Amino acid sequence: MGEIAGSQSRLAYDKLLVFMSAPDNPAWVRKISARFPGLEVRWASSLKPGGGFILPDDLSDEVWEGVTIFMSFMPAAPERMSKVRFVQLTSAGADKWLDHDIYKNTDVPFCTTNGCHPPQIAEWVIGTWLSSQHHFPRYAANQREGFWESPMAVNVEDSVGLRMQAPHPCEVSCPNSGILGYGAIGRQCGKLGQALGMEVYAYTRSERSTPESRKDDSFCIPGTGDPDGLVPAKWFHGTSREAIDDFLGQDLDLLVLGLPLTEETRGLIGREQFDILSKRKTFVSNIARGPLIQTDALIEALNAGKIRAAALDVTDPEPLPRDHPLWKAPNVFITPHVSWRTNVYWDRVLGVLEANLERLEAGKPLINVVNKRLHY
Amino acid sequence: MGEIAGSQSRLAYDKLLVFMSAPDNPAWVRKISARFPGLEVRWASSLKPGGGFILPDDLSDEVWEGVTIFMSFMPAAPERMSKVRFVQLTSAGADKWLDHDIYKNTDVPFCTTNGCHPPQIAEWVIGTWLSSQHHFPRYAANQREGFWESPMAVNVEDSVGLRMQAPHPCEVSCPNSGILGYGAIGRQCGKLGQALGMEVYAYTRSERSTPESRKDDSFCIPGTGDPDGLVPAKWFHGTSREAIDDFLGQDLDLLVLGLPLTEETRGLIGREQFDILSKRKTFVSNIARGPLIQTDALIEALNAGKIRAAALDVTDPEPLPRDHPLWKAPNVFITPHVSWRTNVYWDRVLGVLEANLERLEAGKPLINVVNKRLHY
Repeated sequence: MGEIAGSQSRLAYDKLLVFMSAPDNPAWVRKISARFPGLEVRWASSLKPGGGFILPDDLSDEVWEGVTIFMSFMPAAPERMSKVRFVQLTSAGADKWLDHDIYKNTDVPFCTTNGCHPPQIAEWVIGTWLSSQHHFPRYAANQREGFWESPMAVNVEDSVGLRMQAPHPCEVSCPNSGILGYGAIGRQCGKLGQALGMEVYAYTRSERSTPESRKDDSFCIPGTGDPDGLVPAKWFHGTSREAIDDFLGQDLDLLVLGLPLTEETRGLIGREQFDILSKRKTFVSNIARGPLIQTDALIEALNAGKIRAAALDVTDPEPLPRDHPLWKAPNVFITPHVSWRTNVYWDRVLGVLEANLERLEAGKPLINVVNKRLHY
Repeated sequence: MGEIAGSQSRLAYDKLLVFMSAPDNPAWVRKISARFPGLEVRWASSLKPGGGFILPDDLSDEVWEGVTIFMSFMPAAPERMSKVRFVQLTSAGADKWLDHDIYKNTDVPFCTTNGCHPPQIAEWVIGTWLSSQHHFPRYAANQREGFWESPMAVNVEDSVGLRMQAPHPCEVSCPNSGILGYGAIGRQCGKLGQALGMEVYAYTRSERSTPESRKDDSFCIPGTGDPDGLVPAKWFHGTSREAIDDFLGQDLDLLVLGLPLTEETRGLIGREQFDILSKRKTFVSNIARGPLIQTDALIEALNAGKIRAAALDVTDPEPLPRDHPLWKAPNVFITPHVSWRTNVYWDRVLGVLEANLERLEAGKPLINVVNKRLHY
C-alpha cells in the first residue's frame, strides 16, 4: 500500500546537501531520512580538522552529484548548483548571493534563518533590564568589598504595569533588516514583558489594524514569541519623524530598539528624542545596530540623567575603542555584539530546514523566504 | 431604588482604620468610600514627621472610636480593638499577634499579604539567572577596562528547553512559611520560566494530582503567576529525604529554593545534594532562607565547580560578615536580602485589602486567611 504513487514523498528523488560549520549530526540525518523516504541526505562540515574553514567548492564532485536542495552560508559555483531547486541559508541575510545566477533565478526560493535568534536576544534584553532595575551592578561592587548593605538603601521598581516598547518594523527595505530577525525578536521581548506584567506597545512601519495583519509567519520556536500578535496592548505605525516621536512620548519605561539600519533610521535617536524620553526617564535597549543612536547625544543623555540607563549590545563605532567615553558614561552596560550567541544555534537552523522540507513535501509555501527585490 | 435594604452595602456601618508606614493616599480612600457606600475610612500613617515610627496605641481615642476593620503590621491593645471583626495584616507573617486576645478569637479572621512579593522576587530569580547565563559580570569587568572582547570568546546557553524547578510546598508548618509567599512566588517564577521556553517542574509537600488541587487561591496580581497551576510539566511531592533527592536528580538547570525554614528543611542542601546537582551542574537560586543550604558545602560545591553558579538573596549567617569566604567563592552572586523590595509594595497591600473588602461585602470567603493553628 505504501508503494502507490499518491503516498510517495514529493522529496523521494531529492538530494539534500547540508553544509555548515558544525560536525555531522547522525541523529538528525536519521530522523530526516526516515521522515522523507527516498530523500538522500549528505552532510559536509565546513570545519577543517586543524582549524579554519573550507568552502562549498572545496567539496568533491561526488558530494555535489545530483544535489537539488542546498543548505549553506556561502555560495558554490553556479554549475555545481545547476539542479538545485531550493536553498536554505544558514544566515539571516542573503548578501553573499546577490550576483549569483541561481539566486537570480526566481524559480529557486532562498530562505533565511529568521527566528533562530529571538530567545537569546530577548533574554539579553530582559536580563539587562532586570539587572539595572534591581541594582545588580551595585550589589556586585558591594560583594567585592564584602559589604552587606542595608536592604532599604535603594528603591526597586518592578515591572508590573510598566510600559515596554518593542518595535519590529520588519517591512523596512534594507539588506540588514533580517539579520537580527526584528519581528521575531520583538515578539519574544513582548512575550517576556507580558509575563513580567508589563504593557507592551508595538511599533511597525506599516499599519497592523486587523488580526490577520498582526500575524508573523516567519519561523518561531514552539512555545516562544507571539506569532499571532496578541501581546501588544497598542500598535503604532508610520514612517514619519512625527509618528516615531509620538511613539517615544508614550511614557515608555523600556524602549527596545529592534529597527534595521537604513538611511531612514541612521541617527534616529538624537538629542530631541532623548528629550522626549526624559519625561519618563526611559531605559533604552539597543540590540539592533549602533548607528541607530547618535553616540554623542546618548553620552549627553546619560550624563544628564535624561534616561535612567542604557543597555547596548551594539555601539557606534564598533568595536568601541578602549578610550571611548561611552565605556565610562553613567548607567550604561555594554556588551560586544554578543546577544545573538547561543550554543544551540545550529540545532535551530536545522529546525528551520526541517520545517521547510515539510512544507516542500506538502506543497505549502516555505517560511523565511527571501524577497529577491529587497534581499531579506 | 438604591435605597432598598437589599442593595445596601454589608460594610455600610463599618469603620476601617488603615495604619501603615506610608503617607495618606486620598485617591485610594475616595475610591474605597465610593465603592462601599457607608464605610468610613480612616488613614493613619505610622511615619513620624521627623523620622521613626509610631505604634497603633499612639493614635488618639478619636481615631480608634468604633473601628471594626483594622489594617496594620503591629498589634494594638485588645480593648481598643474590641469591635474589630476583621484584621488585614500588612505583613506575610502573624508572629507579632500570637498571644493577642483578638487573634485568639476564632471569629475574627486575620489575613496576610501573600501575593505582594512574587513579581519582584521572580524578577530577581530570572534576572540573576540570565545575568549568569549571559556572562554579564564578565562583560561588566571588560567594560571597566574598555575591552571589547571577541563575541566568540564564551559560549552562551539560552533557556529554551532547559529545566527549572520551582518548589512551593506552601503547606509546610512553620511560622515563617508565609513571609516570602512560597506558592505564589514559585508560580511567578514558573510563569517567567515558561515564557523563556523552559520546562517547569513543581515540588510540593502534598500531592497535587487533580486540577483542583493545583489551584492557588491566595492573592495574585492580575496577569501574573499561575493561579490555576497550569505551568508545570511535572509535579513532584513528598516530605522524605528520598523524595527531595529524587527531585534534585531530575537534570534541573535552575533550582529555585522557595521552601520555608523549619526543623525539617534546615540544612536541606548539603554535600550529598550538591553531588546530585553536579550531574547537571544545576544553577542554585535561594530567595527563601539562608540556612536551607549548608554554607560550608555550598562553598565547597562552588570551588569544585559542582554547580555552575549560585544566586543568593539570603545567606547563613546573615548579614554575611565582611571576611566570610562565601563573598569570594567563584560563580556566586549575593544580595543583602533585598529581593522582596519594590516601590509599589504598599499599593499591593491595599489591593489585598480591597479584594478582601469586596469579599466581605459579598459574603464570600476572604483571601490569605491565617490558619490560626499554623500561624500563616
